[in-house]
Amino acid sequence: MCQLLGMNCNVPTDICFSFSGFQARGGATDVHADGWGIAFFEGRGTRLFLDPQPSASSPVAELVSHYPIRSKNVIAHIRKATQGSIKLENTHPFMRELWGRYWIFAHNGNLLDFTPALDGSFVPVGNTDSERAFCWLLQSFRQRFGDHMPDDAALFDALHELTLGIAAHGEFNFLLSNGDCLLVHASTRLSYIVRQAPFAKAHLNDQDITVDFSEVTTAHDRVAVIATLPLTDNEAWTTMPPGTLWRFAEGNVEAQRVTRPGPPRN
Amino acid sequence: MCQLLGMNCNVPTDICFSFSGFQARGGATDVHADGWGIAFFEGRGTRLFLDPQPSASSPVAELVSHYPIRSKNVIAHIRKATQGSIKLENTHPFMRELWGRYWIFAHNGNLLDFTPALDGSFVPVGNTDSERAFCWLLQSFRQRFGDHMPDDAALFDALHELTLGIAAHGEFNFLLSNGDCLLVHASTRLSYIVRQAPFAKAHLNDQDITVDFSEVTTAHDRVAVIATLPLTDNEAWTTMPPGTLWRFAEGNVEAQRVTRPGPPRN
Repeated sequence: MCQLLGMNCNVPTDICFSFSGFQARGGATDVHADGWGIAFFEGRGTRLFLDPQPSASSPVAELVSHYPIRSKNVIAHIRKATQGSIKLENTHPFMRELWGRYWIFAHNGNLLDFTPALDGSFVPVGNTDSERAFCWLLQSFRQRFGDHMPDDAALFDALHELTLGIAAHGEFNFLLSNGDCLLVHASTRLSYIVRQAPFAKAHLNDQDITVDFSEVTTAHDRVAVIATLPLTDNEAWTTMPPGTLWRFAEGNVEAQRVTRPGPPRN
Repeated sequence: MCQLLGMNCNVPTDICFSFSGFQARGGATDVHADGWGIAFFEGRGTRLFLDPQPSASSPVAELVSHYPIRSKNVIAHIRKATQGSIKLENTHPFMRELWGRYWIFAHNGNLLDFTPALDGSFVPVGNTDSERAFCWLLQSFRQRFGDHMPDDAALFDALHELTLGIAAHGEFNFLLSNGDCLLVHASTRLSYIVRQAPFAKAHLNDQDITVDFSEVTTAHDRVAVIATLPLTDNEAWTTMPPGTLWRFAEGNVEAQRVTRPGPPRN
């Protein structure tokens, strides 16, 4: 199993504080030592840092935790391999281009017997269930909407329907972004927090680091952070119910949908 | 105009020495200060570092010049913008996936009135002539060969024909790789060197750094380095004639083709 970290904001924000705690889980405070990666959107461009080494001892992770890259959408992943060997091509997040936009995807879970028919438009480079699911999602988007990106609502509807199909194959927590918004599926375990004024101090779970957000923000800033497990020990994180799909935009929850049938009724 | 750096080897090799000299041209010893990038293949995976800042003062470039990433195929680029603003999405190299392989592309030159019909399979994210040419190359490969990668010879034939068409629009020096080989077009200005046993000392043009390759290599190593301008001042670089397309594999020149018509004959 793996751990996910996502950030969605209304102004470009650096993720150094949250990443410092997350990074420690890759081989130091936790066992997710089979590589890690992080992707930052800056406008339509992306920066993708990948390392098949444990994040706790990676020089690239050290750079990322100290070099403030400001972004409105960030996706990070530390890996504990389930399917696919420990290789660079199996390291999340994955990146593809569709509709002249980069798409970034990271997955936590395990899909069994998920072998959809791929038409060649998006083909996995590695051999994980995760990259296969990502390729199938993008292929399905393109089949459904043709050459032009639909509006947010239509895209969210399509993602909801596709997620239902994939989630039937197993645990499917994921983060997906095209730079406009952050799409999140809580299959089993994810939490989030929205930080906004009045900002307070936050203290990491995994390292003895405190930041006073009131000193580094303005009154208008709003930042949503999503993580497999809460990153701080003095803030109120919201547990995302298993079987829920979310769209975060401008640091807010903008849409939510259930992906798990309720108890049987008659 | 920009500068290109490529490396193709028979064993995974780090590019720290060559990159140190190349990096200095991005704002220190030369004027190419509009961003930079470098891509490393490691097996089928790639690591792509991009920075819209000048390489001479980039913390990411500092990491790359000191962190030995071993690779058989590397493509780097420092930018002096001609078309497209200074943004991350216009920073080379560009990456796409085709046939379940990542493809990396960087361009030095300027293409005028190059607006091919794109079918939506590969769409530029930024607005450079370079990314447009890359998308068109990959689209044409897929149209020609369908869902399966052809053999090296067929691919090189196709690239030759496509390069002739694009080069009619202007200066088109490029580096292209899928991780198996390094494809190089010298439109106006590129040089290369093949280093192999017996290895000797090399001294950079752009920084006072010397490396004794005999201390860091084995007798079987072979490394081809391709650059816009020679990187060292005590080695014999070969100038690649304008209008030539090359395939480097395992550190050697494996194929070469002319892309410019000779003088008229009758």
